[in-house]
Amino acid sequence: MERPRHQGMAKNTYMRWRLPLVCLLWEVAMIVLFGVFVRFDSEADAHWEEEKQEMNLTSDIENDFYFRYPSFQDVHVMIFVGFGFLMMFLKRYGFGAVGFNFLLAAFGIQWALLMQGWFHSFKSGKILIGVENLINADFCVGSVCIAFGAILGKTSPIQLLIMTLFQVTLFAVNEYILLNLLHVKDAGGSMTIHTFGAYFGLTVTRILYRPNLEQSKDKQGSVYHSDLFAMIGTLYLWIYWPSFNSAISDHGDAQHRAAINTYCSLAACVLTTVAFSSMLQKKGKLDMVHIQNATLAGGVAVGTSAEMMLTPYGSLIVGFICGIVSTVGYVYLTPFLESRLHIQDTCGIHNLHAMPGLIGGIVGAITAAAATEDVYGKEGFIKAFDFTGTYKTRTPSVQGGFQAAGIVVSLLIAFAGGALVGAILRLPVWGDAATENCFEDDVYWEVPEDEESDVYHMHNPDKPASP
Amino acid sequence: MERPRHQGMAKNTYMRWRLPLVCLLWEVAMIVLFGVFVRFDSEADAHWEEEKQEMNLTSDIENDFYFRYPSFQDVHVMIFVGFGFLMMFLKRYGFGAVGFNFLLAAFGIQWALLMQGWFHSFKSGKILIGVENLINADFCVGSVCIAFGAILGKTSPIQLLIMTLFQVTLFAVNEYILLNLLHVKDAGGSMTIHTFGAYFGLTVTRILYRPNLEQSKDKQGSVYHSDLFAMIGTLYLWIYWPSFNSAISDHGDAQHRAAINTYCSLAACVLTTVAFSSMLQKKGKLDMVHIQNATLAGGVAVGTSAEMMLTPYGSLIVGFICGIVSTVGYVYLTPFLESRLHIQDTCGIHNLHAMPGLIGGIVGAITAAAATEDVYGKEGFIKAFDFTGTYKTRTPSVQGGFQAAGIVVSLLIAFAGGALVGAILRLPVWGDAATENCFEDDVYWEVPEDEESDVYHMHNPDKPASP
Amino acid sequence: MERPRHQGMAKNTYMRWRLPLVCLLWEVAMIVLFGVFVRFDSEADAHWEEEKQEMNLTSDIENDFYFRYPSFQDVHVMIFVGFGFLMMFLKRYGFGAVGFNFLLAAFGIQWALLMQGWFHSFKSGKILIGVENLINADFCVGSVCIAFGAILGKTSPIQLLIMTLFQVTLFAVNEYILLNLLHVKDAGGSMTIHTFGAYFGLTVTRILYRPNLEQSKDKQGSVYHSDLFAMIGTLYLWIYWPSFNSAISDHGDAQHRAAINTYCSLAACVLTTVAFSSMLQKKGKLDMVHIQNATLAGGVAVGTSAEMMLTPYGSLIVGFICGIVSTVGYVYLTPFLESRLHIQDTCGIHNLHAMPGLIGGIVGAITAAAATEDVYGKEGFIKAFDFTGTYKTRTPSVQGGFQAAGIVVSLLIAFAGGALVGAILRLPVWGDAATENCFEDDVYWEVPEDEESDVYHMHNPDKPASP
Repeated sequence: MERPRHQGMAKNTYMRWRLPLVCLLWEVAMIVLFGVFVRFDSEADAHWEEEKQEMNLTSDIENDFYFRYPSFQDVHVMIFVGFGFLMMFLKRYGFGAVGFNFLLAAFGIQWALLMQGWFHSFKSGKILIGVENLINADFCVGSVCIAFGAILGKTSPIQLLIMTLFQVTLFAVNEYILLNLLHVKDAGGSMTIHTFGAYFGLTVTRILYRPNLEQSKDKQGSVYHSDLFAMIGTLYLWIYWPSFNSAISDHGDAQHRAAINTYCSLAACVLTTVAFSSMLQKKGKLDMVHIQNATLAGGVAVGTSAEMMLTPYGSLIVGFICGIVSTVGYVYLTPFLESRLHIQDTCGIHNLHAMPGLIGGIVGAITAAAATEDVYGKEGFIKAFDFTGTYKTRTPSVQGGFQAAGIVVSLLIAFAGGALVGAILRLPVWGDAATENCFEDDVYWEVPEDEESDVYHMHNPDKPASP
Repeated sequence: MERPRHQGMAKNTYMRWRLPLVCLLWEVAMIVLFGVFVRFDSEADAHWEEEKQEMNLTSDIENDFYFRYPSFQDVHVMIFVGFGFLMMFLKRYGFGAVGFNFLLAAFGIQWALLMQGWFHSFKSGKILIGVENLINADFCVGSVCIAFGAILGKTSPIQLLIMTLFQVTLFAVNEYILLNLLHVKDAGGSMTIHTFGAYFGLTVTRILYRPNLEQSKDKQGSVYHSDLFAMIGTLYLWIYWPSFNSAISDHGDAQHRAAINTYCSLAACVLTTVAFSSMLQKKGKLDMVHIQNATLAGGVAVGTSAEMMLTPYGSLIVGFICGIVSTVGYVYLTPFLESRLHIQDTCGIHNLHAMPGLIGGIVGAITAAAATEDVYGKEGFIKAFDFTGTYKTRTPSVQGGFQAAGIVVSLLIAFAGGALVGAILRLPVWGDAATENCFEDDVYWEVPEDEESDVYHMHNPDKPASP
Repeated sequence: MERPRHQGMAKNTYMRWRLPLVCLLWEVAMIVLFGVFVRFDSEADAHWEEEKQEMNLTSDIENDFYFRYPSFQDVHVMIFVGFGFLMMFLKRYGFGAVGFNFLLAAFGIQWALLMQGWFHSFKSGKILIGVENLINADFCVGSVCIAFGAILGKTSPIQLLIMTLFQVTLFAVNEYILLNLLHVKDAGGSMTIHTFGAYFGLTVTRILYRPNLEQSKDKQGSVYHSDLFAMIGTLYLWIYWPSFNSAISDHGDAQHRAAINTYCSLAACVLTTVAFSSMLQKKGKLDMVHIQNATLAGGVAVGTSAEMMLTPYGSLIVGFICGIVSTVGYVYLTPFLESRLHIQDTCGIHNLHAMPGLIGGIVGAITAAAATEDVYGKEGFIKAFDFTGTYKTRTPSVQGGFQAAGIVVSLLIAFAGGALVGAILRLPVWGDAATENCFEDDVYWEVPEDEESDVYHMHNPDKPASP
């Protein structure tokens, strides 16, 4: 265990047969399941011509595609570029950050289409999918990308695929409980995506605790360029978050409102992040870790309430608070979690997703509880909370209670699920790297050997400094 | 003043209390003002269900959100990624370029929602906001990002926030005079955004003139990778400029036309930029500075006229000319402005925004003056220039005159406002860096100390070359 | 020929007069031709107010702008950022990759608007353009970007402009034969864009064969950061490919379906790419070349069939196969093509575009031949294949035959056109670099001289290693 810098000696990280096997078998399974279950929904099916007439639609523009596709593409960018590049801050783990995120998300969206489909789009034996399903699949995978942030650099691609398989499944169960059984609103996923995803990931990383991780402390930092790459991720997440929180809201005012609230919350969040980043550092200098992450907390924290009548100033207040909470978390809480609770959280998802997600759930519960017909209008009130059918008589305060219950359920499933999955991932057969090789691309990637890499490895005692 | 490379000795750049104080106080002010004034407009309010019925709208797709939100997101990318990365060309100022742009824009959009709201969306004591307000706020902040380009690397974050506060205010006043009093058309902002923003910034940098700036000449250049990062900014600005110029045009043909004209102008601009970049360099090689900047001048220069019947070939001509003007400006004018007029223009905004902005204003005036009912159609003519109500009898040539007056007003307010703000920023309390520490991230940022930074600092005499 | 590293000695790469001349003359030609021919179509013209009334349209949202503009912007990102950054993997050719791609695409879209316009949008002596024309122009240029991938690093900008001129012309001819004469469906361009573009480029690079290209072998590789930049290109192509394949499909269900099919195919493709990348490497490590390229093959291969009723599981199968074919191609076929057939394919477009393009054409033919009224619905069937007018009696199996004929035609025109253009490009007057200077930015670009470039040139014997 003590021989440094030769991965695959201490632990077998050889992926040649294991990884291809998992990828191919699982993809074949997807094909079979899609073949049996998945079809186009009526708006994507060629029969729509006739459907349109039956439904008396006069224009193709009424197709849900035109209501949601632009938001879908923004969300898609967030999942693949946003999360992928945000995690690129590590100096020697850029390939892994963006590449593994790509792999797990590409698998995850397929499995999510199935899992969420069975729960929500299952009609006469078939899952009928349209653009809203694509968005929901991306959302579901978003929670896996979040959890990936906690274990970044410490797991093999097989472990990530296994985690994705389980987490997507549990996500769908939790989502079903919240949206269908508790009849909770959570369009931007403060509870279902962020709270669930983050506490799931934190539980997994707790169970995968590596006692001597300070051995690779030198590789846990960033370099100048890797911080700039990470800013690509940050900015795309920040810019497109209004699309994220509004993507599956009701057509019309709800989508419109969700985008505005998110825009406001995110703007406020940047200012308090900068304030506290400077304030908490002795020399008063800004820390890129905070700018890259805490500026996004405002988007997380209005995930539940953005489509409600939170109002622009309410959004500013939420963003204001979350920028502070998140930045303080990076400075004080992350080291504490690591040293005391043995939670090694590579990207600090506790500060960016867990705490703001909880706040988001609470803000959502309060906003729902405070709703009145006066503020929403008679019809708007019913539409906003879908107080129809079985839920016709539900009052705002009861809705607020159910919203709060949703937080608790998400937490419980995250902890239980994370513990289960963590235990599975601890099995010594998945090819994770030795502790001294964590945060190092060349364990799983062909890394180019060239002039520049001399610079990267100039302290590497095994190699001559320069030819 | 002469001790090099130890920032904070010659000048106090310690931000620890000043920057947090400004950020927190101002953000609290935003919350209070939003609380008093800002509400959702009818299309984002939950009452829209009822409104829709009153207005006899049959579909949610009539909500302005679906007309403008995709363009809004493109504009949002331009402001935060486009400008942020375009300014990343400096070898040691990437954090500052993207980070300070992020900070000032996040504050600026909030203040712009208020300022523009009071002028344009104020109804019975409230500012009612919708997606068009978000676009306008981004536009307004765009003018601050432009001005930031002139002073990039030479100011503290506090100075930038102060400039943002004043410039947004003045922008809103100038915009009100142009759009409401002069009844001028300027959808893509050749005058209100580019001419105003650039001359404002140039005036500020003139007043902040640093006589010995050649001390940091070695840091004013780019490195290979920083030029590639800057190309991200360039390309996103170039790609999304059609959205920028069409984002707030009238629904329908005007938005459509504005996008096409801008697309054409930008395409032509690239070819003349390449031609003159090669022609003006002794060895005939291309200069990344030109490719990064002058290729965008075509978008600036159709900002006023894009929504008019400029026609595709008219757009090509404008782009053709502006690629030349801008590239020639970089080669001859920028050095002249610096040495003779003491205008130190870090990003060359005079070439990218000021001159093309003026051309854009003039092209707009001519295009408006040349408008006929024959070309626009009877109704199209009235709609395009909004010749209704008080302006029912205005003729195209009169409109052309008012357009020209709009240029003059924008210039006057830019010069006067820039002088005022420059004078305020010269006060010695804002924590700007000493001249020898300009264009250097580690004055205000925690910069990672690692192998790669050895490369960056290899000429630094204070440090050992390598452990 | 043997003196290394002093470009312009062995060959005259001096661009100062030649490149500006070509750019300026051609742009002037564009202006003249646009002036004579190009006008706005009815939806972008100010007369639309009246047109709307005549057509009984009740809302501006019926303007094609709102159906296609978001997709257009996604496609635009793919052409300029996607292709530009994907080709940035070479360690010393980043400026050339992104810059020349920018140049040729900016020229190409103008010429494509004309060429495609004469064939498809020519009415009473004028080419009438709208947003669909912009998308088609981008598509056409996409085929040039593909061909550029084969000759990347080995040609001068003048050669690229000449290739663009001819290739766009031939593209338009081929497209006309396929879409109008053969009445073939190819919305995402498996045949017209990928098959044609790739075999055209491969023929050109065959004719431009450089026998001693291994002299610059050291520059044909990537460095750590260049691989990360390339991933920006990969991800944007991957994310926006659903927009690419659906951008010009019929309004409504066809666009919707095309996006879903592409999403599915791309997802499957990632898993088989990862599987085979690991499997085919002795140490089982992943190769960034595969991740950057083969993950996209699934998008290429549903280019023809995405808008048909391919179904999600059909898409998964196509993606599954193409990830394998493409990765295997990179490992075995590219070296074979180079050593045996003297086809030097810098980016491996044979694996990413040629083979998947062929597969896409075949899948399209099969899917068309298998179409039934049962699957599409009576009206959907007619609409999907446009079986109206002259084609009223065409059966699916006949359509399948014509689709297959479309592949053959595309191949023939690609080979013949590529041979012609290759012969023209071999003329010794276009300023291409000597073989030992291939893949080197400083032949045509001002490259910053600074600390970092010391790193890049540390093996350069002409320079002192470091001050």
